[in-house]
Amino acid sequence: MTHPTRRSVLTGTVAIGATALASIGRQPPAHAAAPLTGKQAPGWYRYKVGSFEITAVTDGNRPTPLPDNIVKNASKSEVVAAVASTMPGVDKEKPPFPFTPVVVNTGQKLVAIDTGFGPATFEQSKGAIGQYQSNLAAAGIDPKTVDVVIISHFHGDHIGGLIGADSKPLFPNAEIMVPKAEWDYWMDEGNASRAPEGLVKSTHANSRRVFGALGNKVTQYESNKEVVPGITAVFTPGHTLGHTSHIVASGSDRVLIQADVTAGLGLVFARYPGWHVAADMDGPLAEQSRRKLYDMAVAEKMPVHGYHFPFPALGHLDKDGNGYRLTPVFWNTAL
Amino acid sequence: MTHPTRRSVLTGTVAIGATALASIGRQPPAHAAAPLTGKQAPGWYRYKVGSFEITAVTDGNRPTPLPDNIVKNASKSEVVAAVASTMPGVDKEKPPFPFTPVVVNTGQKLVAIDTGFGPATFEQSKGAIGQYQSNLAAAGIDPKTVDVVIISHFHGDHIGGLIGADSKPLFPNAEIMVPKAEWDYWMDEGNASRAPEGLVKSTHANSRRVFGALGNKVTQYESNKEVVPGITAVFTPGHTLGHTSHIVASGSDRVLIQADVTAGLGLVFARYPGWHVAADMDGPLAEQSRRKLYDMAVAEKMPVHGYHFPFPALGHLDKDGNGYRLTPVFWNTAL
Repeated sequence: MTHPTRRSVLTGTVAIGATALASIGRQPPAHAAAPLTGKQAPGWYRYKVGSFEITAVTDGNRPTPLPDNIVKNASKSEVVAAVASTMPGVDKEKPPFPFTPVVVNTGQKLVAIDTGFGPATFEQSKGAIGQYQSNLAAAGIDPKTVDVVIISHFHGDHIGGLIGADSKPLFPNAEIMVPKAEWDYWMDEGNASRAPEGLVKSTHANSRRVFGALGNKVTQYESNKEVVPGITAVFTPGHTLGHTSHIVASGSDRVLIQADVTAGLGLVFARYPGWHVAADMDGPLAEQSRRKLYDMAVAEKMPVHGYHFPFPALGHLDKDGNGYRLTPVFWNTAL
Repeated sequence: MTHPTRRSVLTGTVAIGATALASIGRQPPAHAAAPLTGKQAPGWYRYKVGSFEITAVTDGNRPTPLPDNIVKNASKSEVVAAVASTMPGVDKEKPPFPFTPVVVNTGQKLVAIDTGFGPATFEQSKGAIGQYQSNLAAAGIDPKTVDVVIISHFHGDHIGGLIGADSKPLFPNAEIMVPKAEWDYWMDEGNASRAPEGLVKSTHANSRRVFGALGNKVTQYESNKEVVPGITAVFTPGHTLGHTSHIVASGSDRVLIQADVTAGLGLVFARYPGWHVAADMDGPLAEQSRRKLYDMAVAEKMPVHGYHFPFPALGHLDKDGNGYRLTPVFWNTAL
């Protein structure tokens, strides 16, 4: 994972001289080495918020060559430098973009918030993404028992997992709830016809594909209300025009599920909240939502789940200069 | 997980006014909520170093009320403040102490480095610790296939897992390799008879219990040499007098397995490397080893696995003022 010189290792840190290896007891047994496994642990992590159980269930990471124009108001070399300092150990020119939805069990309702790219992308990406359904199964969650799916916004990495490669619903018993402002914008034929090439146009088409497969049977919700008991929608527009975050609350405990308030490379863009990412439809509005929400999370010491934070995608934000620094959650080894 | 006021949430961050909830499509189905699971994900994480596979396998976290004298040259209130700033979200008066050994598969040898407290502690701690063997199984590693166990030092959380509650070996086919300087110190009857009450005395007794159960069949190794091909011992005394770290190298990739260069609360004591922790037998020597090793890791950009870092216990160190800051590894969702 790094490239020190052999010399520095051996001369810089070893405090005692080499002497003959003293050996007592039995000889090493002749034993076949166990094979390499090539397998990673299943990608889920669970924590309590009051009496609720929240499970972060990752859809995977996608290594992505940084486009020249990934940030509108910063150069690519500035972004590469920020990746190197914020995500040490990754390929700074082709960093992994992480994708992690959550599932909330309130004890009354089992609620999925966002759904990943969908299982069809697993083979296309050679297993990099499209992991959500298998990680959900590893976490012991049957999608047939999900009562409600709440969508934050209509980008494909959030809605794609509503349906399978066969276009059948993956949450067959769930009410699908979508922000009214997202539905109004994306499903408008005039907006679709005027959409510029690229992410905006493809999101119009993909929204019709996915929701069409569901017969457009969705419940629209508005912000500043509980979407389901214990989960309140918070309007955070800019990334998309109806982009919505959520606060999950049980008793006196809360967590902010931020969706794409920082998009793509959440750790990096939290450090540089003034950067206007190309994927944000309205950069200045996204920045305004971001600073407002993050200042609240810092002031309230509210933990934040970021869809594009590295797994397990949960941490605490601090203000650091003009930006924000995430301290990842201390991993609980038991509930 | 935090305690914001309801008012601040609703007035501070919600950008659009509340209007009537618009709802189209079907009604929510009547559906029994899935039960809460009470279960955490199995505690293992795998990564590649060159052609080697390394698996971090946690023994768990133990919530521990901070003793008044946990640091010899800092007050308890300073330590509590450091816990609060370094480990946000945990109980700062009773933080969880994490314990995470690693297993290295070199392709030729399957090598465990340290072993946790041992399964007997699982019930005693109500599942907080003693998880190593079950997490090893979850990771697909059969302890019967382990060829070598390398011990860093003789504290009970590192050697206890060599034997079961029945005192039988848990790695029945493995060569057990121990630092010669540890063996020389702890197994000396004169040192044992002069040991002060507390950790030093109990470690003398526990070392006799554990290694006695193995018939004292161990191989002693010295530092500045490869212990097994690809794993080099680095002498880092102070925490104990023979405390030893390891560098795992394959091709041009390396990782530093630091053991207890920062002990107990690794993240906190990395930030304050001048603090002399009560568990360090020789505080000034431990500080010297710590600064030397960490300065090397920073200069070489070498990732560091800390036995007492939070799971998955791997990250990159930066110098920050007089101390060091760990950036946890970016979690790979596939190998």
